[in-house]
Amino acid sequence: MSNTPPPDATLHDWQRAASKSAPENNLDNLIWHSPEGIAIKPLYTATDTQDLPFTHSMPGFAPFVRGPQATMYTTRPWTVRQYAGFSTAHESNLFYRQALANGAQGISVAFDLPTHRGYDSDHPRVTGDVGKAGVAIDSVEDMKILFDHIPLDQVSVSMTMNGAVLPVLAAYIVTAQEQGIATEKLSGTIQNDILKEFMVRNTYIYPPQPSLRIIADIIEYTSQHMPKFNSISISGYHMQEAGANSALELAFTLADGKEYVRTALNKGMDIDTFAQRLSFFFAIGMNFYLEIAKLRAARLLWWRIMQSFSPKDQKSSMLRTHCQTSGWSLTQQDPYNNIVRTTIEAMAAIFGGTQSLHTNAFDEAIALPTDFSARIARNTQLVIREETHITQVIDPWAGSYMMEKLTQEISEQAWDIITEIDRMGGMTYAVESGWAKLKIEAAAAEKQARIDSGQDVIVGVNKYKLDQEEPIAVREIDNEATRTAQIQRLVQLKKSRNPQHVKEALAALTHAAQTDTGNLLALSVDAIRARATVGEVSLALEHIFGRHRAQSSAVMGIYGGIMEKNQDAQVLWQAIKNNIADFAQQFGRQPRIMVVKLGQDGHDRGAKVIATAFADLGFDVDIGPLFQTPEEAARQAIENDVHALGISTLAAGHKTLVPAIITALKEQGAQDIVTFVGGVIPQQDHAFLYASGVKGIYNPGTPITSCATDILEKIRHAQTAKSFFAAPKNQAQ
Amino acid sequence: MSNTPPPDATLHDWQRAASKSAPENNLDNLIWHSPEGIAIKPLYTATDTQDLPFTHSMPGFAPFVRGPQATMYTTRPWTVRQYAGFSTAHESNLFYRQALANGAQGISVAFDLPTHRGYDSDHPRVTGDVGKAGVAIDSVEDMKILFDHIPLDQVSVSMTMNGAVLPVLAAYIVTAQEQGIATEKLSGTIQNDILKEFMVRNTYIYPPQPSLRIIADIIEYTSQHMPKFNSISISGYHMQEAGANSALELAFTLADGKEYVRTALNKGMDIDTFAQRLSFFFAIGMNFYLEIAKLRAARLLWWRIMQSFSPKDQKSSMLRTHCQTSGWSLTQQDPYNNIVRTTIEAMAAIFGGTQSLHTNAFDEAIALPTDFSARIARNTQLVIREETHITQVIDPWAGSYMMEKLTQEISEQAWDIITEIDRMGGMTYAVESGWAKLKIEAAAAEKQARIDSGQDVIVGVNKYKLDQEEPIAVREIDNEATRTAQIQRLVQLKKSRNPQHVKEALAALTHAAQTDTGNLLALSVDAIRARATVGEVSLALEHIFGRHRAQSSAVMGIYGGIMEKNQDAQVLWQAIKNNIADFAQQFGRQPRIMVVKLGQDGHDRGAKVIATAFADLGFDVDIGPLFQTPEEAARQAIENDVHALGISTLAAGHKTLVPAIITALKEQGAQDIVTFVGGVIPQQDHAFLYASGVKGIYNPGTPITSCATDILEKIRHAQTAKSFFAAPKNQAQ
Repeated sequence: MSNTPPPDATLHDWQRAASKSAPENNLDNLIWHSPEGIAIKPLYTATDTQDLPFTHSMPGFAPFVRGPQATMYTTRPWTVRQYAGFSTAHESNLFYRQALANGAQGISVAFDLPTHRGYDSDHPRVTGDVGKAGVAIDSVEDMKILFDHIPLDQVSVSMTMNGAVLPVLAAYIVTAQEQGIATEKLSGTIQNDILKEFMVRNTYIYPPQPSLRIIADIIEYTSQHMPKFNSISISGYHMQEAGANSALELAFTLADGKEYVRTALNKGMDIDTFAQRLSFFFAIGMNFYLEIAKLRAARLLWWRIMQSFSPKDQKSSMLRTHCQTSGWSLTQQDPYNNIVRTTIEAMAAIFGGTQSLHTNAFDEAIALPTDFSARIARNTQLVIREETHITQVIDPWAGSYMMEKLTQEISEQAWDIITEIDRMGGMTYAVESGWAKLKIEAAAAEKQARIDSGQDVIVGVNKYKLDQEEPIAVREIDNEATRTAQIQRLVQLKKSRNPQHVKEALAALTHAAQTDTGNLLALSVDAIRARATVGEVSLALEHIFGRHRAQSSAVMGIYGGIMEKNQDAQVLWQAIKNNIADFAQQFGRQPRIMVVKLGQDGHDRGAKVIATAFADLGFDVDIGPLFQTPEEAARQAIENDVHALGISTLAAGHKTLVPAIITALKEQGAQDIVTFVGGVIPQQDHAFLYASGVKGIYNPGTPITSCATDILEKIRHAQTAKSFFAAPKNQAQ
Repeated sequence: MSNTPPPDATLHDWQRAASKSAPENNLDNLIWHSPEGIAIKPLYTATDTQDLPFTHSMPGFAPFVRGPQATMYTTRPWTVRQYAGFSTAHESNLFYRQALANGAQGISVAFDLPTHRGYDSDHPRVTGDVGKAGVAIDSVEDMKILFDHIPLDQVSVSMTMNGAVLPVLAAYIVTAQEQGIATEKLSGTIQNDILKEFMVRNTYIYPPQPSLRIIADIIEYTSQHMPKFNSISISGYHMQEAGANSALELAFTLADGKEYVRTALNKGMDIDTFAQRLSFFFAIGMNFYLEIAKLRAARLLWWRIMQSFSPKDQKSSMLRTHCQTSGWSLTQQDPYNNIVRTTIEAMAAIFGGTQSLHTNAFDEAIALPTDFSARIARNTQLVIREETHITQVIDPWAGSYMMEKLTQEISEQAWDIITEIDRMGGMTYAVESGWAKLKIEAAAAEKQARIDSGQDVIVGVNKYKLDQEEPIAVREIDNEATRTAQIQRLVQLKKSRNPQHVKEALAALTHAAQTDTGNLLALSVDAIRARATVGEVSLALEHIFGRHRAQSSAVMGIYGGIMEKNQDAQVLWQAIKNNIADFAQQFGRQPRIMVVKLGQDGHDRGAKVIATAFADLGFDVDIGPLFQTPEEAARQAIENDVHALGISTLAAGHKTLVPAIITALKEQGAQDIVTFVGGVIPQQDHAFLYASGVKGIYNPGTPITSCATDILEKIRHAQTAKSFFAAPKNQAQ
């Protein structure tokens, strides 16, 4: 083989040949401009990588582009960690034990929204949410059931918890202690990245500043008592889910991390005592090459950021990460396609060198996973690990002209954003000012417009659609039964505990919050051990810290701007605008809608995208504040005299919350307000919702233009009917 | 970013760090020795690629490592081509039309086994096979139905046909002509790679030499009349399916191609008139990196091979290929895992730069695809093409230290094998002597032993098994109805045609075969136009060429050798050997089994692997000749006085053929012969087979050791019962 002559074609020869096939014979037409603003070229060659500084680096060594460990998956593949939790602690426990028996290696707990927001299950604001999108935990007694027969010194536990992080982490520690396991043996991760909550997920309790104090206390406590436990998982995942592109996700996550490091340093800690227990969490979507490059770049940039804090141990600059495949990329339409999507994303995460991975179940755009779908999701990882030999080579893309160049380019994009944030005064400021949130919302509106205009294709959604969707079997949570059982257990708990002990422990917490003394996690452990509830611990701090209320505003002009420039979409867009103008002329004002989230569900991407697109079309749009009860939302809709009320639901509470809001509207004589629902709603629930008075149901994948056309027609119909009944007969002709 | 300092860790630093984590602190323990004999290292660096001659080559230019076209998928992605066909031409036609409407871009026709083997549907040898594993085509009238409403000047058609290639290709040409489409407008591929049939798939009709003449005639005819049609598709696919590793598959396929080039040159053709219409066909299995490297190496090596024929046009040295994901890698167990496998394999094919791709349906290890499973398979390609942006970059792995090195290494492995074949006298000799077939069978036995011993993991099969498998809905073919309908149509055809025209056309074919004159495809077109049947055209040539009969022999010692060396497997292996020795002592001879294939199903990998492993255990093993009828197989089993008869079935004929063989055994008084079945048998058919007298059913994934243990026990039971009934009562205690 050695006598193969060297090829003699040059890049110039290629350019000449390729431009003949390019549209308009112009090679520039083959460049793809990614949402991150990176120009992806059709061809990369050695020229692209010759000047890059990191292509000769080694895995396990700074700047860690090629991976945090020297041997990576060749000696220990990533941890197969599946995020799950639903209804009661008992049911979730059975699920975890089965998963561990079938190849899962770690547990990742999903809590329900009341727990996240620090409400016990008997709180009147959370009736629709208990046990719905995760497991309900009210006290250490629930936590003990959750981990029954799971050896906490051997199984690594990841908990996604931000708002009520203190009582939940405390309950985990007390559970282990009461199982006879020393705190220092606990391994796992607490997600606890509060800054991103203010940007995208909204499961905070307190305002940013006291939330950062909680984080500092947790970092301090875990660095002293839990050496194998990751004290925080700094999460970009939810940013991508909310619409951020890869560069934004990367930059904001690292900037968040930088802020937490500063917070801990301000508390007087030494960088090398806690930096190695910071972990990260990224989403891996369908943008295959850039997602791999993102993880490589994340390690490079974190190393660089950490140099400014001068750690002595090189491991303190090493980024380790968990990844999860993108939930947003899953479609309700033709859902088995999601197995394909999740496989592709899992491969990107693995090529990027993740330390642990959650793969979504294919039915998660419809409901909580079934045992079947959860198994296929787990098997996705096992097949890659066991059957493909992909683990045999460390950082296999190293040297790839394209991958090395993209690693550099996304690094530069993200670095520019981080620099901008630094100039602003750091991430807390970027968050408090709302700047970061608007950046993500703008990216989300852009993405939605690209899909609705057909620029971005989603198979089965805006192309290759099925004539008819077959419903699939989904997991149903009996929300009422779960709530009743939780309330009974709370009554029991409160009867059997020592009220004086509880009172004292809670008072100590309130005092420490007020005086900025003590460690809030240590004091929470005391309170939880005394059988204070999650809600009581949260409230003890809320007395001092207050509860955070977000501003609801929306970006303008981005969605409409893309639609108006798109040749295929602009005609329909303009027709709807004209239709709205006609409506305004006929009825004397613009059609007015209010978009609300109900209960404790803070995932507001969908609501915000609808709001911005509808506003661009010419609707008057109100956005309800988060966390309203159905009654509060109904009252506001009537006060604002809206024509239609849209409810965005992603947390499976719709069968309780939607009928409640319709009843509330009727009771106040406002049955003419057209009520519609968008979000994750299984086919099986549609008849129930229509019967309760809903006028339209729009699942993910419905183009906003279709949704707007439909709603406008229904508003017009309702208004016409109203004026018919309201007007004297002779005018109704 | 430009001030990132260069990393200072060296390869030596890495080696020191990595060896600390390696088993026994020895880095060599992290090397994976692939079945191809390639040592896959844990880490590749720039040092690995600095001397490679092709890493600076350009796509669209020799040696084509980076792809045959300059712009590759950036201007035209691979063709989504799904292989399908079943029962009648009418049903297959509906399936194709639906697939084309839903995103498929080409048709790939699967014919049934009688058609492959040149038998009309009314032939007595083919009762169990008509319409089972593909569509039955008896004449041009069937072909016209198959392509009804499919514009053959626009849709590219690939036909897998080797044995009866002349009448089938002729029927396609005549169909187009009678649809008013000029022959020169036809585009597509005829697979027609006969050499591999003698190695692995056995759907030949004539011996190798006349088969090569047929190929030469087809190349000549198509180069003159069908400039857009690929005159042959040289296929490694079936070699990998039969157990070949990637290097063997690559080498044998290219050596086959070389042989076809020589054949055409010997007919006096100019290399540049036909070389550009040769196409290739590879399987893509789960060995991710090596499969990508294989496709890159294939282009490199073909270019090199072609240089020896001195083409004037550089395109004559350019390898273009179709790929199909591996059917062998699919499991009957937990079949939705197959969507994951097929996605991974599809990505490897695409990274390798294939020109067209078939993705298998997830239920193909169980039955023919349903509409649902076929759609998910097609969507697998559409999702990759539309949603991942993978197509945006040409040859994305270029420059990767690992990928470039593996491309070089697999090239060298394959080149050594090709050189060995050349020294032997070329591929026809390697095939005729049986050498090539034994090489593949040895690789198959090795692979099976690695799986059965647990060295190779298959999720859901030998690890992470389900306690209980849920049956899935499968497509059922009504074999009887299809056959009856085909026979009626044949009667009709023979009534309405001009018998004198048919007779003359067939005589002309026989004459041309005998005198080595004329072009057999041109003469077949005349015969088919006169309404001669596929069977009649085949028979007209068989008068002169004869029908090929294969030798059935098996490799020895390979399976047993691996089991005996494996720590986990050797105990069980030895126990079964001892058990067999006991049996021999008790009953006076070794347990004797005969392994047969019935009907026209020539896929004998499974039968051969069973035969070699059983022989290594100590069974006396007979292998029945291919293409026996049930009656012939029963007679041979009785004559050989076997204890057990194993039927290997992969072509869905089991519900007809298995009861027939059991009836034949009973009629000859041999009901004590233990009959068992292995292969692709849906759960739904098990009860039927047991009721008809089968004693064991072993699906793919059953370890041979379990199967052997079970069969031995059943033989012992049958023999004991026999001696009990045969012996006087007082001896039976």
